[in-house]
Amino acid sequence: MKKLVIGVDIGGINTAFGLVDENGDLYAESVISTKKYPYVEDYPAYVEDLCQAMHALADSLSFDYELAGIGIGAPNANYHAGTVEMPANLWKFRRDETDLDENRRIFRLAEDISSRFGGVRTLVTNDANAATIGEMVYGNAKGMRDFVMVTLGTGLGSGFVANGEMIYGHDGFAGELGHIIVERHNGRECGCGRYGCLETYVSATGIKRTAFELMAKMSAPSRLRDIAFNDFDASMISAAAEQGDPVALECFRFTGEMLGRALADVATITSPEAIFLFGGLSKAGKFIFEPTQWYMEENMLFVYKNKIKLLPSGIQGKNAAILGASALIWQAEK
Amino acid sequence: MKKLVIGVDIGGINTAFGLVDENGDLYAESVISTKKYPYVEDYPAYVEDLCQAMHALADSLSFDYELAGIGIGAPNANYHAGTVEMPANLWKFRRDETDLDENRRIFRLAEDISSRFGGVRTLVTNDANAATIGEMVYGNAKGMRDFVMVTLGTGLGSGFVANGEMIYGHDGFAGELGHIIVERHNGRECGCGRYGCLETYVSATGIKRTAFELMAKMSAPSRLRDIAFNDFDASMISAAAEQGDPVALECFRFTGEMLGRALADVATITSPEAIFLFGGLSKAGKFIFEPTQWYMEENMLFVYKNKIKLLPSGIQGKNAAILGASALIWQAEK
Repeated sequence: MKKLVIGVDIGGINTAFGLVDENGDLYAESVISTKKYPYVEDYPAYVEDLCQAMHALADSLSFDYELAGIGIGAPNANYHAGTVEMPANLWKFRRDETDLDENRRIFRLAEDISSRFGGVRTLVTNDANAATIGEMVYGNAKGMRDFVMVTLGTGLGSGFVANGEMIYGHDGFAGELGHIIVERHNGRECGCGRYGCLETYVSATGIKRTAFELMAKMSAPSRLRDIAFNDFDASMISAAAEQGDPVALECFRFTGEMLGRALADVATITSPEAIFLFGGLSKAGKFIFEPTQWYMEENMLFVYKNKIKLLPSGIQGKNAAILGASALIWQAEK
Repeated sequence: MKKLVIGVDIGGINTAFGLVDENGDLYAESVISTKKYPYVEDYPAYVEDLCQAMHALADSLSFDYELAGIGIGAPNANYHAGTVEMPANLWKFRRDETDLDENRRIFRLAEDISSRFGGVRTLVTNDANAATIGEMVYGNAKGMRDFVMVTLGTGLGSGFVANGEMIYGHDGFAGELGHIIVERHNGRECGCGRYGCLETYVSATGIKRTAFELMAKMSAPSRLRDIAFNDFDASMISAAAEQGDPVALECFRFTGEMLGRALADVATITSPEAIFLFGGLSKAGKFIFEPTQWYMEENMLFVYKNKIKLLPSGIQGKNAAILGASALIWQAEK
């Protein structure tokens, strides 16, 4: 009988899920709101409603299949424990709450969902790790034993694969490349409470910050100067770069420099065969790939020079997050 | 029958080797000169003489045993290929040589030695990776699946273990933490040809450079001011620190700051259970451990805070390099 997996992508706004086979073909998909359940005490209702919607989707197919498992991508997910732990934007304390014990915000998501599906294998990991496994199972990393995935969204996520296995680390939280500190002198303030983290430079918000810094620093005219900070979106920089806008081009050069340097450092640790760029910023194509590649090689230790491929992800597209989450199960079955 | 392994440690001056059992007990050891064979064309004679000396040692034991393999630690060793590739200080070109094709300096060491021992399993890796496996097989990392080893000698070497396996990378050269760039503004010149590498700050030569920088920067009296650069040895800084010498104490604080910061960045990539410090500088005990620990936690992303142990190696001592090399075989047999 055909085997399918449910892939679930939990974001701050919505939770999307779909039925996927081992080739990465999507048979049905659906979505529920996540933000309807903002507080700690909303979590049980969230799980209940999500599982109901998943059952409805699972029952909607017109052929028989075996449900091989449920793979979930979620923020602050601990692969080993099957939990989501103190996520910044999910199931928060109410402002007026007095019992702020953070242990109440360790959510046993894998168990809670699995038990509503007859105990089927259920695995969680963060969205960047899910995308990494998606790349390995369905994408351009098929057959690679050592590679790195860099996901460029609002922040910068990453996943590391060595010896054909995902590096989860002893606590299940490995792969936070966005939080290596790349600028120790006057570094930018990061959401994590520190300064100079890579994602404050290399991400949608990072390149936007760079644009504003450069509008202050450079004198060249730029169409970006007509847009207020709060109306500004990173995609406007790509559009301006296409027109040869000098501030936009310098934005990409600088972003590529920061990312290229960091990737040269990464090479010294895991010496990957390839590094994949995924998500928003990576869609800027040559504007981001060319400077990143140049600065990566420029900063590379001689041992690794001209050996490591910088490539676009093979699972880009609207369902990448669902695919990535579903790949967790196929990978675990190997 | 008892099984033994020959562990071989190839250094620039000497090659030491010994017969080791799976508990890390050393049954016999010997040494030949490496520097007697300085040039490319000396390599065959080196292999011949080394194997002869290894056979003599192997025959010297008074009981019967099975030779389970030969593990070799050497500079620039490629684990996957079994080669030593363009080592900086071994089997060099003569000054007057005209054929400088670097392919002539790829030495098929594993094969060349194995063939003289009836084809017994022979593995090579660099000395830091060998020490890492030694820590895993005989030392304080027994049973750990995710850890990092930092070897502090003339330079800074490292080995990364994730999911219970050594990370060699796609080319066999992973684990060069000494060459992440930690200072991009006026960084120190590194032997690799770049500037600001971690090992220019954190290593025996790194802390010596720090001492001279601090003697220029600080006004405090110091016994270190009586020693010329060429007479200076890193161990003098430990001795001075024991006496409360302010320059020596500041040397360690600064070295710990540079190392602690780097280890906090490392945590974001592999999230290890423990980080071990091995070799010369690590013997300074609290002088190096205390500031390193403090700055590591100070710079740590909240997810990893107060979770990662900073520990001394359990295989310190004069035979650590032979033990580490021998462990390659026991680890591969698992």
